[in-house]
Amino acid sequence: MQRIKIKELLNSPQYVEQMVTVKGWVRTRRSNKNVSFVALNDGSVIHNLQLVVDPAHISEAILKDITTGACISATGTLVPSQGSGQSVELQVQALTILGKADADKYPLQPKRHSLEFLREIAHLRPRTNTFSAVFRVRHALAFAVHKFFNDRGFFYIHTPIITASDAEGAGEMFRVSTLDPTRLPKTPEGAIDYAEDFFGRETNLTVSGQLEGELFAMALSEIYTFGPTFRAENSNTARHLAEFWMIEPEMAFYDLTDNMNLAEDFLKYLINYALEHCADDLDFLNKRALEEDKNKKKEEQSELSLLERLHFVVDNPFERLTYTQAIEILRNSKPNKKGKFQFPIEGWGTDLQSEHERYLVEKHFKKPVILTDYPKEIKSFYMKQNDDGKTVGAMDVLFPGIGEIIGGSQREEDYDKLVQRMREMHVPEDTLWWYLETRKFGTTPHSGFGLGFERLVQFVTGMGNIRDVIPFPRTPKNAEF
Amino acid sequence: MQRIKIKELLNSPQYVEQMVTVKGWVRTRRSNKNVSFVALNDGSVIHNLQLVVDPAHISEAILKDITTGACISATGTLVPSQGSGQSVELQVQALTILGKADADKYPLQPKRHSLEFLREIAHLRPRTNTFSAVFRVRHALAFAVHKFFNDRGFFYIHTPIITASDAEGAGEMFRVSTLDPTRLPKTPEGAIDYAEDFFGRETNLTVSGQLEGELFAMALSEIYTFGPTFRAENSNTARHLAEFWMIEPEMAFYDLTDNMNLAEDFLKYLINYALEHCADDLDFLNKRALEEDKNKKKEEQSELSLLERLHFVVDNPFERLTYTQAIEILRNSKPNKKGKFQFPIEGWGTDLQSEHERYLVEKHFKKPVILTDYPKEIKSFYMKQNDDGKTVGAMDVLFPGIGEIIGGSQREEDYDKLVQRMREMHVPEDTLWWYLETRKFGTTPHSGFGLGFERLVQFVTGMGNIRDVIPFPRTPKNAEF
Repeated sequence: MQRIKIKELLNSPQYVEQMVTVKGWVRTRRSNKNVSFVALNDGSVIHNLQLVVDPAHISEAILKDITTGACISATGTLVPSQGSGQSVELQVQALTILGKADADKYPLQPKRHSLEFLREIAHLRPRTNTFSAVFRVRHALAFAVHKFFNDRGFFYIHTPIITASDAEGAGEMFRVSTLDPTRLPKTPEGAIDYAEDFFGRETNLTVSGQLEGELFAMALSEIYTFGPTFRAENSNTARHLAEFWMIEPEMAFYDLTDNMNLAEDFLKYLINYALEHCADDLDFLNKRALEEDKNKKKEEQSELSLLERLHFVVDNPFERLTYTQAIEILRNSKPNKKGKFQFPIEGWGTDLQSEHERYLVEKHFKKPVILTDYPKEIKSFYMKQNDDGKTVGAMDVLFPGIGEIIGGSQREEDYDKLVQRMREMHVPEDTLWWYLETRKFGTTPHSGFGLGFERLVQFVTGMGNIRDVIPFPRTPKNAEF
Repeated sequence: MQRIKIKELLNSPQYVEQMVTVKGWVRTRRSNKNVSFVALNDGSVIHNLQLVVDPAHISEAILKDITTGACISATGTLVPSQGSGQSVELQVQALTILGKADADKYPLQPKRHSLEFLREIAHLRPRTNTFSAVFRVRHALAFAVHKFFNDRGFFYIHTPIITASDAEGAGEMFRVSTLDPTRLPKTPEGAIDYAEDFFGRETNLTVSGQLEGELFAMALSEIYTFGPTFRAENSNTARHLAEFWMIEPEMAFYDLTDNMNLAEDFLKYLINYALEHCADDLDFLNKRALEEDKNKKKEEQSELSLLERLHFVVDNPFERLTYTQAIEILRNSKPNKKGKFQFPIEGWGTDLQSEHERYLVEKHFKKPVILTDYPKEIKSFYMKQNDDGKTVGAMDVLFPGIGEIIGGSQREEDYDKLVQRMREMHVPEDTLWWYLETRKFGTTPHSGFGLGFERLVQFVTGMGNIRDVIPFPRTPKNAEF
């Protein structure tokens, strides 16, 4: 018989009183002399299907292998459930063990495991409620990204992963090479001869697809990237990964306001999509976060629940103000005057820390905030220089709990201004000749931004550690699986 | 005024007789004393919009800068066109030059450029008809991949790019490192001390996400990956890239037949999606391919046009047969008997070459072919061992012109058989402990396959060289842009 997914069985009344086959993994089993109740999960949905097994119908050899983690196939009649907690259950008529799970060795017993322990068994953690929910939500958000842009006529561009340029002009990168490190070829001057390397030059893993994305925006008008990016920074925090996925739209003919409008629409669309399509998973994650909060100190507990935070974002227009205005607010804020900030706000020009961003969002405005027009000294070379000579047309979107979730800008479209800024910031012109040429041939005002996908998944799932929202995290000293 | 995309203007009759603003890049300009005709393209669609410019209304300073490649904004009334070749045109009332393009320096003049030359200016080639069409089709196919799987309840999994394992047990890989190559740390024995490297071990760029994909299929039932993969092979051919994108679905509870059914449905869905959503671009590419064919020798010309090939795939059930049956057909074939194959078919056990695959598809069956049950010696360690002791449950989907477009298999779910095969093939068990554990804990029959995305885009667009279907190709000695 054709297997039917548990999600379908739970959502489609036509299966009631029908004979069906389900396959999945045993979560728990409770037995007495007369009956066994088996909770079966197949990953299609957070809910288990309850199997009702009459020991008289199933051989003892099979019964003893129905243990947590075992994979089974069960055929029977789907009936309305007498018990609480489920609408239907399966009266099993035939049951096959597809794969056993030795109860003494299977690491995922039906009890609470720490997230740290589950990270060590990342190959098994998607079989837990928490991680299956997180990865279903992650899928839904990824699909929503593509749907949002496709519906609006944006084109998905695969920018290169291996690159000879560094978009940010900063940040440590991973070297990519096929040279034998024990026998490196040398130039006559004694340097490593990268002409002998696979690509005939020194290459790294990309930190951003933006520059290449801009090239396509200057031809197809509206494009986006969605691919892996890399940072070789030795940051062992709950917010950093060495390998993460980034979404970077680039749009010809957009100024900074168009860019902000798109970013706000985009974030609200994604969160609404998750609220609509992942109600069961978000409900579970909401309860989970409330449980977690109970173990925290009062002052570390969230004022809003996960679901309240999601609605808070979609229901409120984002507050928009300039960096200069934000500095004034922060300078005059209570925590600044009382010396509560770890980094006191002394004046215009310094970069904002997470504590400042969160103060603006969570305490002052009580809604998401977009800061614009930052000092040019703390931003990248490619951002549009404002007429004041001091600021650039940057925008950062700040979220509760997370701080910066999107960073973007209008791009400098003027060739001379761009070259001048590159020289000031020591960005090599020769490796970026192709980027500069877009300003020579048919340049136009254009804008774009970057959204770190894992930050978004963290925000929507309420997971505190970024390592718990990507299948196999890459961090310093860790490339397992 | 809000800019409207040319695609919308051409498809929405409500804009006729309305005042609208368009922005885009000048493709050509024809002028006489009384009027200038400007062909404007904004990348939203293959068609240009014709701007009718009355020199009396526009200053001479502006007029002289309306050259090929310039970016302009034009406002005027959209009217039915008198000329042939377009349904509407814009009677321009105001025109702004957003960015000039010096006619003496702009490389993309309105004439036929070779694909080789355009590869050297990959930052500008999306502004040509051919490449804008290719990249719009590429986008549509990528979206169709996600839609196909999302509609069927598959979950998109981002498997790691940086990895310490090699899925194929073969193939040259790119090393990823942050060690200073001029000062490599050494172990007491004199070897390079990778414990000092970023990840504390030797790491490479992934060649496949399959093994990690399987882990998730054993929890969420049906998943797929869609990400970049890498081969450090020194292959300078029209079929190979060092960096390319791969789609790899993995499904619990699928046997080889289920796997073949999914692969066939998937390919037909993707091609149908392109036929429905990219009609204009495919029409252009079809004509382009016919033109190209005219310059080829008679025997190298395609029997079918591009559009005929696409319909040929969606309209025919794929022929399914075993490797063993295919060898019989090939051994008795005319080209084999007449010594026309470069690699004569001598007997059972040898791998098939592209010439054999194409003979089966194009000459013998005249439809796509799925070959199954290959000799285990020429396939990977993870494939399901058949009862005959000689073959494995592999399947390759063969397409006209391309040869293998999909490779897949049922996976070996039996722990003992898998370990035995790994030992025979010298695949290290210790680095794959997590892969082996899925066979210890709740194993089940499961299957999957890989589709090289660029091969698919090549097939659908008819582009002969794989470097022309990816934005910025990575090949030996080339990582430009």
